[in-house]
Amino acid sequence: MRVLILLGCPEPPVLVPSFIYLTNMLKKKGCEVFVSANTAALKLVETADPEKLYIKNVGFQEIDEGLKDAFDVDYIISFVHNDAGVSYTITYMHKYKAKTIGVVFGREMKEDFVNTLKENGIEAYFVRAFHNPMPMVVTLKRILENIIKN
Amino acid sequence: MRVLILLGCPEPPVLVPSFIYLTNMLKKKGCEVFVSANTAALKLVETADPEKLYIKNVGFQEIDEGLKDAFDVDYIISFVHNDAGVSYTITYMHKYKAKTIGVVFGREMKEDFVNTLKENGIEAYFVRAFHNPMPMVVTLKRILENIIKN
Repeated sequence: MRVLILLGCPEPPVLVPSFIYLTNMLKKKGCEVFVSANTAALKLVETADPEKLYIKNVGFQEIDEGLKDAFDVDYIISFVHNDAGVSYTITYMHKYKAKTIGVVFGREMKEDFVNTLKENGIEAYFVRAFHNPMPMVVTLKRILENIIKN
Repeated sequence: MRVLILLGCPEPPVLVPSFIYLTNMLKKKGCEVFVSANTAALKLVETADPEKLYIKNVGFQEIDEGLKDAFDVDYIISFVHNDAGVSYTITYMHKYKAKTIGVVFGREMKEDFVNTLKENGIEAYFVRAFHNPMPMVVTLKRILENIIKN
């Protein structure tokens, strides 16, 4: 299975650790992982994994570059923290024509983000997480159990 | 060489990636690494390194617990983002009686934090870093070049 992860604004401290956790889980389940990331988020990921132990064989592209030419993926999983994240998620879904899952997260519930994603045919979750990664880890595990049945 | 890293409030997104980067550099140079961390910071570190590839053999303790019984370390390196970080750095220096380096960081210059650390005999640096880890990486490399001469 081929999965594209969208990584936007890295302001919440849970984002980069949660991304590495998700990438590790996907690779262990035999998925091919691709990532479209904001430049600051990408630098944070490279700093958090200096020996590329987790991001080895992961295909990275800059988030705007990734909208120029789509390639085949089965799923898009998008971390959504702000308005731009909502827009990128919808735009990527249309460009890549793949099943798309949006994980909205932050200090407070963002019902409008979740609703906008759902109205656009995206499976959307909300996770109350900013400093503490555990609620995000639980949601990511649940999402993977749903999409990887074997 | 034995180095204790102090990890306080994990609000700035650069903190956890920078910590893993520093730990990896220290271990590659043959240092023993110990960490006193705030609970949320520790959970973020564990999420960012789910297979414990970087934090293997690193001794973790909760930041307040670590003040009960000191052990021998050559250096303390402390990431300082707020008032509490300044206090912990000074308190740890007195408890552990080790050479202490404070890396103050954030969106804006915090001259009072740097001055307070210096007045207490701590080698202090300021790094303007919140999202982008590169200035922090450069400073951490410079600090290590100074303390590890071989």
